[in-house]
Amino acid sequence: MDIQQLVRDLKTPNDSKIVMLVADGLGGLPVRPGGPTELEAARTPNLDGLAKRGVSGSMTMIAPGITPGSGPGHLGLFGYDPVRFLIGRGALEATGIGFKLEANDVAIRCNFCSLDDEGKITDRRAGRIPTDESTAVVERLRAISIPGVEVFVEPVKEHRFVVVFRAEGLGGNVEDTDPQRTGVAPLEPVANDEPSRRTAEVARQFVAQAREILAGQPKANGLTMRGFSTKPDLPTYEEVYGLKAAAIAVYPMYKGLAQLVGMELEGQPANLREEIEVLKGAWNDFDFFFVHFKYTDSRGEDGDFDAKVKMIEEFDAVVPDVVALNPKVLIVTGDHSTPCALKSHSWHPVPTLLVADTCRPDGCQAFSETESNRGGLGHFQAVYLMPLALAHAERLGKFGA
Amino acid sequence: MDIQQLVRDLKTPNDSKIVMLVADGLGGLPVRPGGPTELEAARTPNLDGLAKRGVSGSMTMIAPGITPGSGPGHLGLFGYDPVRFLIGRGALEATGIGFKLEANDVAIRCNFCSLDDEGKITDRRAGRIPTDESTAVVERLRAISIPGVEVFVEPVKEHRFVVVFRAEGLGGNVEDTDPQRTGVAPLEPVANDEPSRRTAEVARQFVAQAREILAGQPKANGLTMRGFSTKPDLPTYEEVYGLKAAAIAVYPMYKGLAQLVGMELEGQPANLREEIEVLKGAWNDFDFFFVHFKYTDSRGEDGDFDAKVKMIEEFDAVVPDVVALNPKVLIVTGDHSTPCALKSHSWHPVPTLLVADTCRPDGCQAFSETESNRGGLGHFQAVYLMPLALAHAERLGKFGA
Repeated sequence: MDIQQLVRDLKTPNDSKIVMLVADGLGGLPVRPGGPTELEAARTPNLDGLAKRGVSGSMTMIAPGITPGSGPGHLGLFGYDPVRFLIGRGALEATGIGFKLEANDVAIRCNFCSLDDEGKITDRRAGRIPTDESTAVVERLRAISIPGVEVFVEPVKEHRFVVVFRAEGLGGNVEDTDPQRTGVAPLEPVANDEPSRRTAEVARQFVAQAREILAGQPKANGLTMRGFSTKPDLPTYEEVYGLKAAAIAVYPMYKGLAQLVGMELEGQPANLREEIEVLKGAWNDFDFFFVHFKYTDSRGEDGDFDAKVKMIEEFDAVVPDVVALNPKVLIVTGDHSTPCALKSHSWHPVPTLLVADTCRPDGCQAFSETESNRGGLGHFQAVYLMPLALAHAERLGKFGA
Repeated sequence: MDIQQLVRDLKTPNDSKIVMLVADGLGGLPVRPGGPTELEAARTPNLDGLAKRGVSGSMTMIAPGITPGSGPGHLGLFGYDPVRFLIGRGALEATGIGFKLEANDVAIRCNFCSLDDEGKITDRRAGRIPTDESTAVVERLRAISIPGVEVFVEPVKEHRFVVVFRAEGLGGNVEDTDPQRTGVAPLEPVANDEPSRRTAEVARQFVAQAREILAGQPKANGLTMRGFSTKPDLPTYEEVYGLKAAAIAVYPMYKGLAQLVGMELEGQPANLREEIEVLKGAWNDFDFFFVHFKYTDSRGEDGDFDAKVKMIEEFDAVVPDVVALNPKVLIVTGDHSTPCALKSHSWHPVPTLLVADTCRPDGCQAFSETESNRGGLGHFQAVYLMPLALAHAERLGKFGA
């Protein structure tokens, strides 16, 4: 069943407001036998109060056992099957630095590398040159000019940068030029289909000009290209759900992902408190609000249990301000788990909470992984979260007579 | 989504060990209102201890309401969609008697039957002749010789036997010759596609020679053929999961099923205690161990509640020896339910338990059908058990960046 098509057919817009609060990497693990998870250890009176009023569930982002990256995690949350709607690595990298891809773009992840006199790679990461140094080199690459193609060169971090070619009809199916080892020259860009031949030719010209510009560099005198990809072709929130959607986030990656599904960026918040102020200010202008909180994931990646607990408590503290806006549907969830015990994203389900006047409360007494296991939403897949949101907002018609 | 393809793409082998303990037909039913199931009635301190440390769930083998045979049940456990990867009846019968099918084989389930003077069937099962009698007749059929084809004839039980033709290019798409009634002659073998024409011709020659050999038999003077099938084309555990896998089982059927997915047979154990000794001895040579315990199913089929309870207690008793090996992931499950109340396989979900340092404990206090219903694995399909095993063994990479 194509749930998105079904929702598209059944959507019946009204003037209700839906808020999705996403605490990145929310789900966790105990760090000692019999101990609590980060969420269970945190003092979260506001979220627990919502759990009592609402309906909880244990959400699988992609499939049991599969750990999602940030791209697939958010696509799942937004209701797009992450396996069907793939975001190419180059497109994700460009999105992650806030570059707004257009339909005719091909984005490429690039690394500076060090080459010897014969053009063979001696260091695939150019000694991990500091970001300020590489940014200066990236700026010099902006002198590259290729007829009929608009070229963008954007710094990322250390040896990494992004190149975007903009021209009609460019394919994204070009092999990586990174040979993944030293002692050999970077590979030539090779196209895997007809529309990508021109892309490969453009890439060759880019590399040739770049080699001249970089010739005098002590470390970053070469480059490799990976993850050639076009802008993913995702239907918008307006098209699928009939929702005018706003994204409120601090980090470029999440702003970018939201833009890929047609959300508008609101404000320039620097922290969660400011995000909530943006939410209040934009309240009358949108139907749907995606509010992203990053630091639960960051502290999980650090493996700092107490710090993640503290971030969850900060997250809990803004909940009353959101509730005061009186959204028709309020969802609290994450895009994946990031247990401190693993210091990385994980496959564990994400505790998820939905509050609406139309929901069927389930007796859960707190917002936690353990309580969510017995919640009324059951164990469900992320792509069903948006249909559930729309249903509780009474924005979905009946299927069949 | 093709979960097996996803797992294949994401697998990242390490040196962890995974053990899957399968108690055949584990799931049960109460025999009186409000009473316990067999598993709930059994004293299982070791399994209950694992349930407290691990994560439980209620596993559906194929789909809700569908009762699996042993073949589909095990394919599901092994992570192969049982509806997509069909094992032909002939191939399953050959596998069940421990015949190791090769790529060029066509396997056929045969029945001895009784024919009258006109060649019409008077008894479709040749009076269910005793196994020792039919084995002697089967041995005489080994004299059959067909140019260019290697022919195997193997006894099964009573009137049943297996024939395998081995030759390049033989198709498996031939109609049964059993007319399913008496008073008519066995049907001619009819091919349904081009590669099966030669198979049908070989079958005709086999039947003609067999009729001559069987002419003097009092009861078993004819035969019918059913379930023509080639070896199922299953990718191996090594290919899909990157696992070197061992199968430890007493009965040929389960050894055969495990071999179909590329597991190696270890030892010649005669009972569960010996199986555990084989497990210990093979510990350093494999990544994955499938250990099969038959008698929970047998006593379920007998409808003997107390005897099944006792078998579950015997199963529980070996658990500490397995735990002592310190597997990274330990799974305890069944291939289907076999409730004594029904004396047969059933569609009821199978209580399933996974223990690993990386699991999220769920508060379940015992290993039972009722506790599994509220477990952290939720209600899940069998094909996700192997992805979950690999994830908890940290053998799966992240999907997307």
